[in-house]
Amino acid sequence: MRIGPLLLLACTALIVRRIAAQENTAPGSLQVPARTLPVPTDVSPELQKIIAAPRRPGWDKLWKTGEEWRAVANEQAAQTLETLPAMRERLHVTVKPTTIDGVRAFVVTPDVIPPEHRDKLLIHVHGGCYVLSPGESGTGEAILMAGIGHFKVISVDYRMPPEAYFPAALDDAMTVYKSVLKTSNPTNTAVFGTSAGGALVLEMMLRARQLGIPLPGAIAPGTPMADVTKTGDSFYTNELVDNVLVSRNGFCDAATVVYAHGHKLSDPLLSPIYGDMHGFPPAILTTGTRDLLLSNTVRVHRKLREAGVEAQLEVFEGMSHAQYQFDDRVPETREAFGEITAFLDKHLGH
Amino acid sequence: MRIGPLLLLACTALIVRRIAAQENTAPGSLQVPARTLPVPTDVSPELQKIIAAPRRPGWDKLWKTGEEWRAVANEQAAQTLETLPAMRERLHVTVKPTTIDGVRAFVVTPDVIPPEHRDKLLIHVHGGCYVLSPGESGTGEAILMAGIGHFKVISVDYRMPPEAYFPAALDDAMTVYKSVLKTSNPTNTAVFGTSAGGALVLEMMLRARQLGIPLPGAIAPGTPMADVTKTGDSFYTNELVDNVLVSRNGFCDAATVVYAHGHKLSDPLLSPIYGDMHGFPPAILTTGTRDLLLSNTVRVHRKLREAGVEAQLEVFEGMSHAQYQFDDRVPETREAFGEITAFLDKHLGH
Repeated sequence: MRIGPLLLLACTALIVRRIAAQENTAPGSLQVPARTLPVPTDVSPELQKIIAAPRRPGWDKLWKTGEEWRAVANEQAAQTLETLPAMRERLHVTVKPTTIDGVRAFVVTPDVIPPEHRDKLLIHVHGGCYVLSPGESGTGEAILMAGIGHFKVISVDYRMPPEAYFPAALDDAMTVYKSVLKTSNPTNTAVFGTSAGGALVLEMMLRARQLGIPLPGAIAPGTPMADVTKTGDSFYTNELVDNVLVSRNGFCDAATVVYAHGHKLSDPLLSPIYGDMHGFPPAILTTGTRDLLLSNTVRVHRKLREAGVEAQLEVFEGMSHAQYQFDDRVPETREAFGEITAFLDKHLGH
Repeated sequence: MRIGPLLLLACTALIVRRIAAQENTAPGSLQVPARTLPVPTDVSPELQKIIAAPRRPGWDKLWKTGEEWRAVANEQAAQTLETLPAMRERLHVTVKPTTIDGVRAFVVTPDVIPPEHRDKLLIHVHGGCYVLSPGESGTGEAILMAGIGHFKVISVDYRMPPEAYFPAALDDAMTVYKSVLKTSNPTNTAVFGTSAGGALVLEMMLRARQLGIPLPGAIAPGTPMADVTKTGDSFYTNELVDNVLVSRNGFCDAATVVYAHGHKLSDPLLSPIYGDMHGFPPAILTTGTRDLLLSNTVRVHRKLREAGVEAQLEVFEGMSHAQYQFDDRVPETREAFGEITAFLDKHLGH
């Protein structure tokens, strides 16, 4: 069917009128017309492929129970597990399961650890909206950090729905952290993670301070789910622009609600942006211009800075949520973990 | 007229089809539907007002001559000049015109200069797409820096079209910088500016290195027009979202083309992102999540970091282009210039 320009114009006018009538009630709201976003040309060809990928399949599936999420998680984990052996080989890293004071974990060790890293130990808290990436499938980011940064890493395989709900993930991460402190100087340890993992890093700092436990020498919360109350401008500006999380009303929100299990979402132990960040260790934060959590990330950065914390912000061109840790063969992945390594080298050990 | 849901649906389908046929030719391009962006609630009420303002009047006026731009600039300057006396009073700053080796400038002095700032001198290069903010109307950001940071500032009133074209602005800024070096240690000086001013800061570093002139102790290029070839993802993602620059095809692009006067826009002295940034002084960059130049800014940050330069990135929630310097009564303005001050205090003098 051919569409004449006049019909098109008429249609546009009708729709704009209807949108205006329905939505333009809040003063100052901005109407943004439909747009086409080309793949940016100023990133590596490898990253261009990731940016050009269609929106995540199932982004709008809003499962309501831990059992349903576990089925999704297992399906995705099976796919992820297939990719890990080649990645470990490329990065010269070995991964071994362990149990630390009853908590499942993986010890992630690079073949080569330089002398200045031999007394350092990193704790990794994986992402996945508190329901995804169970077992070994959650070790990808730990492998990147170990392989690119040449640090020994312990990756926490925290309990998730339906095995357990809030605050199980935080409890398990704290158990591992406390255990590590028995043999490591806190100034020689760092905690890192992305998305829900990034939020857990911040939640751990709040909890450790509550408990009077020493904080680590540095933290690296990547694009943290620091505000799960859907507050933040990029929840709107990057809606349907981010091809990973896609929407504030998508799968990740639904999953978080299941994990929270009725607990108030604005509790700083679920939305750490509402916590007091004074006294936090030096922090490096990583995000991208298309990230649905761009605002979450820059708000945490600003809040840390206001609290007098040394905090470094890295924003990667064109990246949606957490894409700096999607593939070790992408130059920008090397760059992101290179920055984290340099930051840890600067701040650990004193 | 009432619109039935079926008609609306039919219209939408037709338009989506037409858009797809016309625009979705580049593989990986993302279709983003029309949206309504509410004013973010997680910024100060003062900043909310700035974000809620309608798109800049005249953003789509594409004047083609220096004379036309000068008329626009004079009109805007008259309005700006009315606001400056109260601002100077609030910030306890005096401004005096001067001439430095033939270049017009303003000496901007805070009433109180702390002892550790008495041997420091900042050079300000104003913004305005290389054609706006002539004379005293370009001193606003210098007043903010002097008043909030308690530094003495020299603001360069560089020549603009139709008085002169590329590279007149850069030449005048360099003349002032060279003159300052006659009496100041370069490590005690910093250069700062926003937008075209941010680009000029970077262009000055490239030019100084070319000429073998020592670089300053630190720089603060705010949301720099570092790539005027319209390359950068936020030229698309923040199109019509940024209420200041609004569009990559708007007034600022037209103005830059007039200033360039036929010179190649990808020349690093017009698009410093294409210059070599090795050996640049420590840099602090400031932008906002809605900034049309968010990508320009984060790309400069990454490029500086890749070149081994100490570079700090600040991204403010919800801000469009350069809004951190719109009004001294906005808490986020104090925060932004507070960060720049802390950065200069850390890096100047050694």
